Amino acid sequence: MAGQRSRAGQWPVTSGTDVAEFDLIALIRERCALMREDVRLGIGDDAALLAVPAGQLLAVSTDTLVAGVHFPASTSASDIGWKALAVNLSDLAAMGATPAWATLALTLPQADVHWVTEFANGLAALAREYKLALVGGDTTQGPLSITVAVHGFVPEDAALLRSGARVGDAVYVTGTLGDAAAGLRLVDQPTFAEPATLALLERLNRPTPRIAQGLALRGRANACIDVSDGLLADLGHVCTASGVGAEIDLDNLPSSAALLAATDAQNRRAFQLAGGDDYELCFTAPDAIAAALLGDLARTGCAATRIGRIVAKAGVRASDGAGNPVTLPQAGWEHFA
Amino acid sequence: MAGQRSRAGQWPVTSGTDVAEFDLIALIRERCALMREDVRLGIGDDAALLAVPAGQLLAVSTDTLVAGVHFPASTSASDIGWKALAVNLSDLAAMGATPAWATLALTLPQADVHWVTEFANGLAALAREYKLALVGGDTTQGPLSITVAVHGFVPEDAALLRSGARVGDAVYVTGTLGDAAAGLRLVDQPTFAEPATLALLERLNRPTPRIAQGLALRGRANACIDVSDGLLADLGHVCTASGVGAEIDLDNLPSSAALLAATDAQNRRAFQLAGGDDYELCFTAPDAIAAALLGDLARTGCAATRIGRIVAKAGVRASDGAGNPVTLPQAGWEHFA
Repeated sequence: MAGQRSRAGQWPVTSGTDVAEFDLIALIRERCALMREDVRLGIGDDAALLAVPAGQLLAVSTDTLVAGVHFPASTSASDIGWKALAVNLSDLAAMGATPAWATLALTLPQADVHWVTEFANGLAALAREYKLALVGGDTTQGPLSITVAVHGFVPEDAALLRSGARVGDAVYVTGTLGDAAAGLRLVDQPTFAEPATLALLERLNRPTPRIAQGLALRGRANACIDVSDGLLADLGHVCTASGVGAEIDLDNLPSSAALLAATDAQNRRAFQLAGGDDYELCFTAPDAIAAALLGDLARTGCAATRIGRIVAKAGVRASDGAGNPVTLPQAGWEHFA
Repeated sequence: MAGQRSRAGQWPVTSGTDVAEFDLIALIRERCALMREDVRLGIGDDAALLAVPAGQLLAVSTDTLVAGVHFPASTSASDIGWKALAVNLSDLAAMGATPAWATLALTLPQADVHWVTEFANGLAALAREYKLALVGGDTTQGPLSITVAVHGFVPEDAALLRSGARVGDAVYVTGTLGDAAAGLRLVDQPTFAEPATLALLERLNRPTPRIAQGLALRGRANACIDVSDGLLADLGHVCTASGVGAEIDLDNLPSSAALLAATDAQNRRAFQLAGGDDYELCFTAPDAIAAALLGDLARTGCAATRIGRIVAKAGVRASDGAGNPVTLPQAGWEHFA
């Protein structure tokens, strides 16, 4: 039984690294050092002690990344660190919340100091952008897996919910769709060095959480979700939560130049509808505020595109630019699952 | 690349179970249903929305359990669910915090509905005891691993820290030590059915977070930590954080009847000093308040035992009942690591 137990800070030694005196969490903490007045006690005791501002609700979300499931085994430690935080921040963005704190549970096969340093650098680079403090952590030995829990603030009654979509709302999406899924297909391909490929891989490995866009939508969009599972699935969640349906115009799905350069029309559409991992925001809003809202979003540096409309009939349906219905057989997307 | 990606709610089907329409988080949520007024929005959107009471700090901690590392592979799903929450609640207890909410990140090889149901039942049984609400979750496919993040409340300036121990304080521990480590050695042994063995396994698999005791210590103990890594290691953390040392009397370490029945003196001492997984509280307090404090703790149903004293000289040292120093070679405990 002796070999069954391992504790935080106790690790097998990897070549060239003395882990006996080495505290991985201390290393990560050092890389992610950031002072916030609302962190009364950070990493180092049994729990962090944190102050939520008066009048604000705490928004909490957690997501796990597993090696070989949520990212290819070839992904760099730095990109994994970035992405582990980014996918969580994307959930705060979809609520219209301002990021504040995160905890990190890192499970690693070995205490590889170089790997952990690069991982922490990637995570810290994104954390700094949002003045987010790492307030707690646990390192354990096991198959590579990263669970982050993020905490943010949102004023009472101002959060963006999935359940507020109304019949007649237009449906929008920020940025472009399909890049991450296309990037995933190109990992380890011979096209690796081409500019379009690099751009798509950057979108796969270093997604941008749409925090500023979520804040701009607050109090204005009727419903919002981040596109993590794929547009059809995520817009479907909004429709289910709101008791409505949606019709989307396939010819209006926004595509990056890199995606257009790297894919044919059929693959592009598949990536955009079912690829996931884009971490754009999909939201609904009434036409009356469209002009002002789209202008404000464009000024954040990430414009939104109108891709459809909310209707009474349940389900998500699609048509082409001429208004002809396009069948979206569920089985057609199973190979992405 | 297609097989590399999996998303929450999309799982391989296990025998006899239709997971196509099956949402594991919905199953867990249903089992863990508990209403709290401060949960403004629970599981089901991109983030939970939570209200922290005025005048209270938020205490946050996270811990991961990995199969074969933190629990034997033979552990029941129900016990794993209980323990995953218990080890986290123990951190709140050590801060003197009142539990409120938790998030759960569950990584499973397969969507085994029976396993998940039992897991959720074990977790819910403990959550109900503390009126704790499960407010967020993520289910992913991968090697079995559970990360919980817990959230609790503690009044400003009332938290129990590791850093407050003062020279002259007595050192105490709640309950008894060594049971979980002894239980771990007895897993799969032929003594399995004996009453003492069952009691030790219960302590290993269903530890009791000392929440009530942490609350009783608030504003009275100078320092506190939970015994998760082993008494020597954890008391060492308190000493390091406080800039002091400690001397413990080995003959005063509290033992359960089950431990006395199942072990010889040498193994017992090893389990008690370095075994870990007990989740008792180790705390320091001045003698002046000892009588009142110990009386209050006894009334919580879990008495505390004085096991030593805080001294100026750094490090943790031990002596027997006659006051003779006992050498504690670090290497002597390595086989537990």
